[in-house]
Amino acid sequence: MHKDIQDLILQMTLEEKASLCSGFDFWHTKPIPRLGIPPIMVADGPHGLRKQKEDSDHLGLHDSVPATCFPSGATVACSWDRTLIKEIGMALGEECQAENVSVLLGPAANIKRSPLCGRNFEYFSEDPYLSSEMGASYIEGVQSQGVGTSLKHFAANNQEHRRMSIDAIVDERTLREIYLASFETAVKRSKPWTVMCAYNRLNGDFCSENKFLLTDILREEWGHVGFVMSDWGAVNDRVDGLEAGLELEMPGNGGLRDWNIVEAVRSGKLPEEVLDRAVERLLTVIFKAVGEKKENASYDREEHHQLARKAACESIVLLRNEDSVLPLKKEGTIAVIGEFIKSPRYQGGGSSHVQPTSLDDFYDEIRKVAGEGVRVLYADGYSLENDNVDEQLIDEARQTAIRADVAVVFAGLPERYESEGYDREHISIPENHLRLIEAVADVQPNVVVVLSNGSPVEMPWLHRVKGILETYLGGQALGGAIADILFGHANPCGKLAETFPKQLSHNPSYLNFPGKGDKVEYKEGLFVGYRYYDAKDIEPLFPFGYGLSYTGFEYSRLFIDKDEIMDCETVTVSVNVKNIGSVVGKEIVQLYVGGTESSIIRPKKELKGFAKVELQPGEEKTVRFTLEKRSFAYYDIDLKDWQVESGDYDICIGKSSREIVLTTRIRVQSSASPKQIITPNSLIGDLMADPDAAPIVQQLLHDYNEKSGLMESLKDNPEMAMAMMKYMPLRGLTAFGQGRFTDEMIARAIEQLMETMSKRYVKN
Amino acid sequence: MHKDIQDLILQMTLEEKASLCSGFDFWHTKPIPRLGIPPIMVADGPHGLRKQKEDSDHLGLHDSVPATCFPSGATVACSWDRTLIKEIGMALGEECQAENVSVLLGPAANIKRSPLCGRNFEYFSEDPYLSSEMGASYIEGVQSQGVGTSLKHFAANNQEHRRMSIDAIVDERTLREIYLASFETAVKRSKPWTVMCAYNRLNGDFCSENKFLLTDILREEWGHVGFVMSDWGAVNDRVDGLEAGLELEMPGNGGLRDWNIVEAVRSGKLPEEVLDRAVERLLTVIFKAVGEKKENASYDREEHHQLARKAACESIVLLRNEDSVLPLKKEGTIAVIGEFIKSPRYQGGGSSHVQPTSLDDFYDEIRKVAGEGVRVLYADGYSLENDNVDEQLIDEARQTAIRADVAVVFAGLPERYESEGYDREHISIPENHLRLIEAVADVQPNVVVVLSNGSPVEMPWLHRVKGILETYLGGQALGGAIADILFGHANPCGKLAETFPKQLSHNPSYLNFPGKGDKVEYKEGLFVGYRYYDAKDIEPLFPFGYGLSYTGFEYSRLFIDKDEIMDCETVTVSVNVKNIGSVVGKEIVQLYVGGTESSIIRPKKELKGFAKVELQPGEEKTVRFTLEKRSFAYYDIDLKDWQVESGDYDICIGKSSREIVLTTRIRVQSSASPKQIITPNSLIGDLMADPDAAPIVQQLLHDYNEKSGLMESLKDNPEMAMAMMKYMPLRGLTAFGQGRFTDEMIARAIEQLMETMSKRYVKN
Repeated sequence: MHKDIQDLILQMTLEEKASLCSGFDFWHTKPIPRLGIPPIMVADGPHGLRKQKEDSDHLGLHDSVPATCFPSGATVACSWDRTLIKEIGMALGEECQAENVSVLLGPAANIKRSPLCGRNFEYFSEDPYLSSEMGASYIEGVQSQGVGTSLKHFAANNQEHRRMSIDAIVDERTLREIYLASFETAVKRSKPWTVMCAYNRLNGDFCSENKFLLTDILREEWGHVGFVMSDWGAVNDRVDGLEAGLELEMPGNGGLRDWNIVEAVRSGKLPEEVLDRAVERLLTVIFKAVGEKKENASYDREEHHQLARKAACESIVLLRNEDSVLPLKKEGTIAVIGEFIKSPRYQGGGSSHVQPTSLDDFYDEIRKVAGEGVRVLYADGYSLENDNVDEQLIDEARQTAIRADVAVVFAGLPERYESEGYDREHISIPENHLRLIEAVADVQPNVVVVLSNGSPVEMPWLHRVKGILETYLGGQALGGAIADILFGHANPCGKLAETFPKQLSHNPSYLNFPGKGDKVEYKEGLFVGYRYYDAKDIEPLFPFGYGLSYTGFEYSRLFIDKDEIMDCETVTVSVNVKNIGSVVGKEIVQLYVGGTESSIIRPKKELKGFAKVELQPGEEKTVRFTLEKRSFAYYDIDLKDWQVESGDYDICIGKSSREIVLTTRIRVQSSASPKQIITPNSLIGDLMADPDAAPIVQQLLHDYNEKSGLMESLKDNPEMAMAMMKYMPLRGLTAFGQGRFTDEMIARAIEQLMETMSKRYVKN
Repeated sequence: MHKDIQDLILQMTLEEKASLCSGFDFWHTKPIPRLGIPPIMVADGPHGLRKQKEDSDHLGLHDSVPATCFPSGATVACSWDRTLIKEIGMALGEECQAENVSVLLGPAANIKRSPLCGRNFEYFSEDPYLSSEMGASYIEGVQSQGVGTSLKHFAANNQEHRRMSIDAIVDERTLREIYLASFETAVKRSKPWTVMCAYNRLNGDFCSENKFLLTDILREEWGHVGFVMSDWGAVNDRVDGLEAGLELEMPGNGGLRDWNIVEAVRSGKLPEEVLDRAVERLLTVIFKAVGEKKENASYDREEHHQLARKAACESIVLLRNEDSVLPLKKEGTIAVIGEFIKSPRYQGGGSSHVQPTSLDDFYDEIRKVAGEGVRVLYADGYSLENDNVDEQLIDEARQTAIRADVAVVFAGLPERYESEGYDREHISIPENHLRLIEAVADVQPNVVVVLSNGSPVEMPWLHRVKGILETYLGGQALGGAIADILFGHANPCGKLAETFPKQLSHNPSYLNFPGKGDKVEYKEGLFVGYRYYDAKDIEPLFPFGYGLSYTGFEYSRLFIDKDEIMDCETVTVSVNVKNIGSVVGKEIVQLYVGGTESSIIRPKKELKGFAKVELQPGEEKTVRFTLEKRSFAYYDIDLKDWQVESGDYDICIGKSSREIVLTTRIRVQSSASPKQIITPNSLIGDLMADPDAAPIVQQLLHDYNEKSGLMESLKDNPEMAMAMMKYMPLRGLTAFGQGRFTDEMIARAIEQLMETMSKRYVKN
């Protein structure tokens, strides 16, 4: 502990210490002027700074100072670009410095369990590796500017429905391998100044007072050094929370609950050391923030706007491009249709809602990039007011489309469809968007659909259009980015960070989302996202990792530097990628690992590496990945640790999770030697499969058959006889031994097995 | 207790009492000549008597006296015919009397969780209602002859893989509504003399020592009055078993473990009353068996063979009949192809394997029924020795098929594919069967496939053939039954008692079958069989309840005698069914119930009634069903009882689970009035939905908004504002109240809510 902080704590009264454990108001920590402890300000993120205007001390979501609205988390995750996300983080950090904000509330690293979750647009992915990598890069970027982050919402906050009361029931292995893993790298590698606990309960306990989460895992296993704050209003029992590891309650509510802490210390219920430790963590971050504060900081709005445009370009996913309908030619007539052009959908609703510094006019940007040679027609197509099909608008759109060489329809989800606070109930786009697409496709063979939506939608009209661009929620410079991509100024290079299902019922959580009453059971377990679609052999609409380009890439020379490793060693994987098209482009190379045999239930393959590489036409580069123990491991709930099963693992290089282009195999040897246990319930088949045990068991069976004649009696059904013996516990020999084979004989055999293999077997 | 039995127990030594708790040998209980206690004999069922020959005291599966081999459980379940199954039971009882067998080991009422389970051919259905009705009828039939039954395998023995050690992890609601429900009616209504416990563990405890199963549920809740015996070799700890409610260990093993019982009583570990109670139960059944023994009993083999033929006819399912390819005309040339014709597959392997009294020659039966006017050609098509495609046999089959007007191909699963003892790993038929069907379809437009298999197979060749008959494992008179159906002497009237999936991965247990190591988790929960295919909207190959006929049926006049009932009342449902075709036929009318809204997770609909009705051409009959509480209920694990949610329920009449022809709606009112609990964590939305609570909460919110201004600050996102308030716990008002709203105010509101609605709310 820093000496000054230690001194400070010694000088603080009990009441002063308790007072630090909740906010001053909605956005500040409490100052203690007497001791020179300043307040620090926190403000909403994650994809832009939402700093409440100075004259407003509450939650007014649209009442914030202008800031750059970058593409949302769901969008930038499609860039799969660690550097880009770090750059965005740096820009966000600059804006925080300029606005006197010490901690930005983001990134949001929850897993996309269901496409229905209203807050998915803030989250990165259905895959914990990708999500945690993105989160880590974001934190690095922001914190490089002397501004803290708050990694949120820890943990298993995967729905908005009853979010403040729902109890997520998640088995520990699933929790470790999926829901916590999505935070783990971000905490371990990037050390966020703060972590924000989630609203919900997890396996019975509120996350705000969940010691398993906040102390056992976050602090002790992962080494979190900052403090933990509550999501706004997430505190249930303030004292239980403090004890579990929740240092800061937000928002402030007049210090009402600070008194609970004071009383708990006075009554002896709460050891004062717990409070002191919390205060130490709070002061450490507060003084760090003060220390890294840059006076008179400012940022270049235009530069940040351009970064937002680049980010959108890098993230937009080209889902379909029949007959190379894209990029559009800079000639002839183009119809752009849809009210989204006039009122773009570029960010999500709720606490992350940013007041943009400027907002691209889509129509202007398209005209600008298209240039003089192109005639651009426009039609509304639908009204954003409601979902009703307006036949007059449809008809105008049809007439407009007929007159053009190509029609670009802007559609997706209006703002009211998705927001923090509530979930969707289906994944359709509004009826009037749907009808518009169909109506335009009726009269125009060249249709491109540009989608704006925070989370997947179904596309029954897929085969009626030639091109689809998925922009998610692309931020304030989305208009320019779309224009760049439509006309080939930028080559699309995003890939999906989540599976798009053909229909909602295909989603793994479908039968158990959003739960009933205040309980939601994650019965799909590990099989989240592509892990499920792979295992159940369900064809997605578009798979995880999928995205097209205006150029093509060829893979070759997959190479591993070792064919066999111990699980404590690393292996380097390299693969060559070549741009075989005629324009510059970027490819996202994906590395998946899958065990070939397993004694536990595991997904077929899991993402364990990715790299984004830019290639000039004809250029070839070598991409390298390092795999380590965790790349092959599962979480063993009995041993309470990550374990690798000895065996062969496939290393698969894919253009998407469903398009594996090269595969090689490595043998990994576990360095663990867990003791096996022999009991009368050990199966004969299991023992026979062990080369050390087999001879002893063989002899036992020989004696047994002489005495019992059981095998002889089963000669007419040799398959069953074999299976019966294989699945028979040692104790079964007595049961079928007609009195000629006793429990004592079994006990002797167990003794003998133990003597022979004392190093490997222990008796239970 | 019967006075004589009480006296007997008083006269018995401790050793004698213990001795009764395990068998004398493989098939008899122990006699105590000193006290005039005779042994009784038990023998394998369920679909035929497998009585070990007298000179053999062990397990030799093919070493039994001849007995009628009726169609297996999977087959007769397709008859959906309670009367028929009772008739079969009566015939089995007669055969037991003739062979001095006191207890027949059946029926087997386990749920078909996965089509892979090696013993599915013995089980009835994926639906607990159908399964338990079939089981109850079987027990009634057998026991009407003074012979006991042993309802097995209790419980959750849904796989053969590691069956003696596997631990089935099943949540209690699923257990109650699916896996136990499959036994419940059979126990309650038909009172089996004995129940056989399963090999496996259930939620940690071996079924053989599972007090929850054997005592709490079986005896105390369901009122089982007979004894419980172990499956052969299922005993783990004999004393624990006895205490849990397992009276008889089988097979006998020289009384080895009787000593454990004696020692446990002597040491005080086991109260002697427990042993006395077990002996009483054993003696009650033993003397009942002796009392009902018929001297010099015999049965008419030919009559039973004809019953087996009728049973097969009633059970075979016509899956496909394009262009009315069936029934075949009695003219021209018919090719019958497949070695199954010479070596029929008509029963399964393992303990249920019966030595038939006679076995139909398929070829002869077909010739006999076809009559003089038909030329019948034959080709092997494949060898049953292995799966290899023999091109010569294929070619012969092709040549034979070319020369005929129609080809009937016999295919399915050879004996080695499925048996007690092991599970399948896929649901394909052998490569040589597959190729044969395809090769014949290449040259012959009129192909009928006759399938023999104990459990579903996939049919990639479906659309290449015109007719499919599913015979399952049809018993010793299958040949005659097939001939009857092929030529229209009988009209097919079976319907599937399980879903046939398009591919194995569609099965709900797919990701969790057969588990790993000694643990299998039933994560699909309630969604077994059609409940899953319905809920996940997956098109099955053939749905539960599906089957065609040579005639047609029309449904009309669905009527319920009350529109609204209390859950303690019953309602009568009637519906008219008319034969609109030109031949006599039988229709299986299915009644499903589905709630329209539910606060718990429930299947869309569940089978709650069925009736099989015979109709002459043009004839119309009214079918009646009575629905009661259980028809609408779910098992509430908190209240530990069956509960009905007040609300509207759809009553659906279907020709299959996927072809609902008529629907009506009834309102059911719960008679329960569970106390709701109000706490600071009660959600505002839930309280506002309650007409009594709403005004108080409304006032609270009014005061709150005046103080906090929270809602005003959210005016830009009204959807979120509404959702936020709806999902906010009362305690949240303090959190967002900026110090102007306190926990005490919330506490007062809770007090007020309680005062106003003291009858309905209690404070936690």
